[in-house]
Amino acid sequence: MKIKPLHDRILVKRLEEEEKTESGIIIPDTAKEKPVMGKVIAVGDGRILENGQKQPLAVKEGDKILFGKYAGTEVKIKGEEYLIMREDDVLAIIEE
Amino acid sequence: MKIKPLHDRILVKRLEEEEKTESGIIIPDTAKEKPVMGKVIAVGDGRILENGQKQPLAVKEGDKILFGKYAGTEVKIKGEEYLIMREDDVLAIIEE
Amino acid sequence: MKIKPLHDRILVKRLEEEEKTESGIIIPDTAKEKPVMGKVIAVGDGRILENGQKQPLAVKEGDKILFGKYAGTEVKIKGEEYLIMREDDVLAIIEE
Amino acid sequence: MKIKPLHDRILVKRLEEEEKTESGIIIPDTAKEKPVMGKVIAVGDGRILENGQKQPLAVKEGDKILFGKYAGTEVKIKGEEYLIMREDDVLAIIEE
Amino acid sequence: MKIKPLHDRILVKRLEEEEKTESGIIIPDTAKEKPVMGKVIAVGDGRILENGQKQPLAVKEGDKILFGKYAGTEVKIKGEEYLIMREDDVLAIIEE
Amino acid sequence: MKIKPLHDRILVKRLEEEEKTESGIIIPDTAKEKPVMGKVIAVGDGRILENGQKQPLAVKEGDKILFGKYAGTEVKIKGEEYLIMREDDVLAIIEE
Amino acid sequence: MKIKPLHDRILVKRLEEEEKTESGIIIPDTAKEKPVMGKVIAVGDGRILENGQKQPLAVKEGDKILFGKYAGTEVKIKGEEYLIMREDDVLAIIEE
Repeated sequence: MKIKPLHDRILVKRLEEEEKTESGIIIPDTAKEKPVMGKVIAVGDGRILENGQKQPLAVKEGDKILFGKYAGTEVKIKGEEYLIMREDDVLAIIEE
Repeated sequence: MKIKPLHDRILVKRLEEEEKTESGIIIPDTAKEKPVMGKVIAVGDGRILENGQKQPLAVKEGDKILFGKYAGTEVKIKGEEYLIMREDDVLAIIEE
Repeated sequence: MKIKPLHDRILVKRLEEEEKTESGIIIPDTAKEKPVMGKVIAVGDGRILENGQKQPLAVKEGDKILFGKYAGTEVKIKGEEYLIMREDDVLAIIEE
Repeated sequence: MKIKPLHDRILVKRLEEEEKTESGIIIPDTAKEKPVMGKVIAVGDGRILENGQKQPLAVKEGDKILFGKYAGTEVKIKGEEYLIMREDDVLAIIEE
Repeated sequence: MKIKPLHDRILVKRLEEEEKTESGIIIPDTAKEKPVMGKVIAVGDGRILENGQKQPLAVKEGDKILFGKYAGTEVKIKGEEYLIMREDDVLAIIEE
Repeated sequence: MKIKPLHDRILVKRLEEEEKTESGIIIPDTAKEKPVMGKVIAVGDGRILENGQKQPLAVKEGDKILFGKYAGTEVKIKGEEYLIMREDDVLAIIEE
Repeated sequence: MKIKPLHDRILVKRLEEEEKTESGIIIPDTAKEKPVMGKVIAVGDGRILENGQKQPLAVKEGDKILFGKYAGTEVKIKGEEYLIMREDDVLAIIEE
């Protein structure tokens, strides 16, 4: 069973606290309860521009990303919690 | 009697709880009373872009989809409840 | 005396309760007092796009349509009540 | 002394109650105090689109029109009350 | 000392009550304290469209105009009060 | 140390009361505490339009300008107060 | 471990008070608690325009910049506080 995000949306798995300290990213205390780091599980095939052109996304499956605290919609799949958000909510990609 | 959604709108039948667990998607408790999964019954013939071009929709009849909790307008047809929403309200397609 | 809606507007006659049940469409109780089904009486000649092109409307005279509860402006013509709305308020066309 | 509305604006003279019943248009009671029918006295030479093209107006001098209750700005000219509004406020043209 | 309004802005001198009755324009009482008629003193050299094209203004120096009650910013020059507004605030040109 | 405003922004030094009366511009009392006249110290290299074209600014270094009371962000440089604003906040250029 | 801001975003390290006085920039007292000067650590590869073209950013790694007080999202990386903001939040570049 696969989730295929639509257009410019992406499916993201939040990364728990410990996984984050190893890569050095700690989210400021104020954001403690809402970690803003995650891993990209699946991406849509791109944003449709006003001239009809399809603009592929810059993030890809497997990327570690930083995103806004309130980004996306929560969905549970087989007991696991995921987020579906637009690429525009992604702040940066973390390159190990 | 057929319902033909206009332009970038689609007609959706909500999927009940049990149908969802078999495919693994459970909507977080907070959203319990408003399931956000459904099946596409009919689609419009596309969005008109500012250059006059018609952009066909990415979702098609029969697709299982995830959509925003407050998406669409409720309509009852022959006693059955449906939703009419814009494609932009669709988060993802569930590929079995 | 003819009413010619302007650009992307359409003139609509609301369909009463009984007429609707025969075609199977019943609007959810919550919307009881504001039926959202109607018949298209006249259409404008199209929407002007930003490139100056005129985009003809998808709905035509005689179509049965579903539209948003709060759509349009009420006008009485020869004692009969009509609505003037934009095509974008139309959710779907009902094909018998 | 002539009033030349600018770009996509038009000058409108409201039509009083009696004049309206002869042509059959009666505005619903709720709108009683603000009649929404009128006659076009003068029109601007068109709307400038983002590509610089001038889009001529669909309404012309002498047309009888229906417009939104709160449309336009009131102006008194030689003791007579007029409205200056944008063409986009016009709902329909009444063809006798 | 000359004031050169920028792009699509214009410099306007409000016309006092008497000057207006001679040309027949009286502003409805409600607007009594804020006359909306004036004379164009200077104009900007045009609006830059999204395609980079410069769209010259329709109003020119010396024109008598009607404008919205709350249009523009007040500026005093050599003890005289003026308004700087965008051309889009101008309702019409008064041709004597 | 030079401040290079970005894109369509400009760096402005407010002109004090006396400097203004010599050139005749007095800002209405209501705006007394927030003078809206100033001198352009530096300009950005232009606004990027949606077609990628760079639109050079109309104001240049040394120009005396009029701007909206609440325009810009305050910055102190070597003890002197400046404003950084967008060119769109500029009402007019004062040509001596 | 590298942070690659997405599209038109940039990673910025705030500059402390002392570092700023040497270059002469002091932020007005009112903004004391939120310094608005910083150094660019990394930049995205550009903004996607509506015609699909990628518009490279004007700021580059190492630039000293001025930005709006409330700009960006705070992120801690290896105990250090950074901001991720859009280039549009940048007011100016400080050229030593």
